[in-house]
Amino acid sequence: MYDPDNIFGKILRGEIPSTRVYEDDDTLAFMDIMPRAEGHVLVIPKTPCRNMLDASPEQVAAVMKTVQILSRAMMVAFEADGITLQQFNEAAGGQEVFHLHFHVLARHEGDRLWAPGNMGDQAKIQQNAMKIRAAISDLQINV
Amino acid sequence: MYDPDNIFGKILRGEIPSTRVYEDDDTLAFMDIMPRAEGHVLVIPKTPCRNMLDASPEQVAAVMKTVQILSRAMMVAFEADGITLQQFNEAAGGQEVFHLHFHVLARHEGDRLWAPGNMGDQAKIQQNAMKIRAAISDLQINV
Repeated sequence: MYDPDNIFGKILRGEIPSTRVYEDDDTLAFMDIMPRAEGHVLVIPKTPCRNMLDASPEQVAAVMKTVQILSRAMMVAFEADGITLQQFNEAAGGQEVFHLHFHVLARHEGDRLWAPGNMGDQAKIQQNAMKIRAAISDLQINV
Repeated sequence: MYDPDNIFGKILRGEIPSTRVYEDDDTLAFMDIMPRAEGHVLVIPKTPCRNMLDASPEQVAAVMKTVQILSRAMMVAFEADGITLQQFNEAAGGQEVFHLHFHVLARHEGDRLWAPGNMGDQAKIQQNAMKIRAAISDLQINV
């Protein structure tokens, strides 16, 4: 079921570039290249699984720990008013890359998510990634 | 921050009715009364927290275990092609009830989620709940 040649598999192996904002032994968080908000991060496990339907409880727990870190950091980084999480399973569920991933989106009062499918501005994405990294660093110092 | 008088707090205390489909020591799953698909379930922790921003890792792990059970069961119950998960934090993030909850939605090829905010047909919701309970029962027998 799991095809290791998916884009996130390639990102994990360093075969294609990504803008990483956080990493631990079990998970990686990086900027979505087609962002639907200023703050739009993907969180994935480092080990293979397709989605929530085949993931182990350990893979899910590791991913959720990182999702919480990113959610809290992105509230600070973007002076956000809320966070939206989305997670898609199989094409009918909205999944486009078949390696488990959670979308973490920073939201502001009255905003709308940007239309899907548009490449983001790379300079802007790098700026936003720096904001997130700084917020994670601050939060970890203050734990 | 957590207000125990929210609707899901009342459901947990049995002060208002809900159509329960699954329960364990730490979590409860019940039908959304404003469904956006035939299969639309909410999964909540039994202990108080507002959302992912204040939830403990233990609360999140317990909820995700139940989310996975429901996701797998709803694929069977509705002969679904996929599952969409949504989770909203604070009003700007889409949250309307301030007790942590995950939306689990059964999807079919080419479908669209129904418009939000409409009360579902109670008889239909009861039928769909029975399908989910039967699928959970079958999956647990076959583990």
